[in-house]
Amino acid sequence: MARIKCVVAYDGYNYMGFQIQGNLDTIEKRITDAIFSMTLDKVKIYSSGRTDRYVHARGQVFHFDTNKEVSNYGWTKGINAFLPSDIVILSSEIVNEDFHARFSAIKKEYHYYITEENDVFKNRYSSYIYNLDFKLIEEAIPLFIGTHNFKGFCSLKVDLRKDFVKTIYEAKVIKHEKDIEFVFIGNGFLKYQVRRMVGLLIEIGQRKSTKNKINEVIESGDPTISHFIAEGKGLFLEKVYYGN
Amino acid sequence: MARIKCVVAYDGYNYMGFQIQGNLDTIEKRITDAIFSMTLDKVKIYSSGRTDRYVHARGQVFHFDTNKEVSNYGWTKGINAFLPSDIVILSSEIVNEDFHARFSAIKKEYHYYITEENDVFKNRYSSYIYNLDFKLIEEAIPLFIGTHNFKGFCSLKVDLRKDFVKTIYEAKVIKHEKDIEFVFIGNGFLKYQVRRMVGLLIEIGQRKSTKNKINEVIESGDPTISHFIAEGKGLFLEKVYYGN
Repeated sequence: MARIKCVVAYDGYNYMGFQIQGNLDTIEKRITDAIFSMTLDKVKIYSSGRTDRYVHARGQVFHFDTNKEVSNYGWTKGINAFLPSDIVILSSEIVNEDFHARFSAIKKEYHYYITEENDVFKNRYSSYIYNLDFKLIEEAIPLFIGTHNFKGFCSLKVDLRKDFVKTIYEAKVIKHEKDIEFVFIGNGFLKYQVRRMVGLLIEIGQRKSTKNKINEVIESGDPTISHFIAEGKGLFLEKVYYGN
Repeated sequence: MARIKCVVAYDGYNYMGFQIQGNLDTIEKRITDAIFSMTLDKVKIYSSGRTDRYVHARGQVFHFDTNKEVSNYGWTKGINAFLPSDIVILSSEIVNEDFHARFSAIKKEYHYYITEENDVFKNRYSSYIYNLDFKLIEEAIPLFIGTHNFKGFCSLKVDLRKDFVKTIYEAKVIKHEKDIEFVFIGNGFLKYQVRRMVGLLIEIGQRKSTKNKINEVIESGDPTISHFIAEGKGLFLEKVYYGN
């Protein structure tokens, strides 16, 4: 028995999210089917976490267990041979059996893109919003940094027994020529958390809200205060970090 | 009666080419339908030329005639309101009635992209080919420059009464970090011409052919000598040039 860790990139625009949901076309289903086509084994893959419908990944991580003896490069090439062109395994590695794609992850990095241009070639990979006051967003975003109860930025449909306390190590916004890029690095993110944080930052940039709202949502833990959820297609799971 | 000139960008990956073909989903059909939805007039649009299935445009041009009085900006915003997000009118302009999107064009510029990376975010917009010898391509490409009979680089299915003599003013290749970009500027291009020229350049870069083949195909006018047609998804109609 060997445990295989894979890093995968995908253009999520055509998929119903990561997680298998019956016969819906999801990333997990495509990968599981590809591994089956390669090995004739029905394996269960474990990801670092789900991504929503339309959300992309440059460095999602998953693992699975197998009895097949295949080289690292053999797994990458073999699985890719059965994947569509918008899902690509970047690397595969035989790892120790105490590695778990989800539980061993120590940090995750998400990027979110907004474009001011109605550009057909950016449309699948960013949210088209113009006239944002960049300075207001830049002033507000550091308020997310630190260890907070993020229940107020979580999906309404969530198991309340969950731990909502998460630490954000880095939260910054970068102005490109016609685009705005958000970077969030934290020890974990709740369902919809990044898109809800960006949603409120957009409203702050549109002067529909102010940065004080960030503290208000965090302190109240009330997910009904801030309503706007930024579109999935602008979100990229950039990287999952593991310890040595 | 006014004649309107529009510049349009599109991500051609999901379309069956530009030209209307019955009920197939084409760029021309989407634009014609959008103008109808806006004006309730069935107009015929005239483009600078067709683009093939999967081919993209950053600056395709078309014109149409209308009795409606709408401002330039009104046309752009109005048509875009009825277009899908992968087709965007960039500008509209009321022009003189002797303007014709196809016959008034004096130059056209195409770009073609090859990527060495199996990158899910480049896949729709480039052809994935690695191990090309860039220097061989760079040495060969200037042979296309000048006035030649390009019948040997044209589609096999073509009206033989056509004029196959075209002038290429600029033909160059640029090496980016992981990508190769081809630029062709000419007074006009035949069906499949750019993709067939790039196809032969790829074979030269793969050492399956040599630059002498370019002259051989031009001199013979035989479109069966060079077989490889580069994929449509890597091709961009960059710009259509008109006189003053």
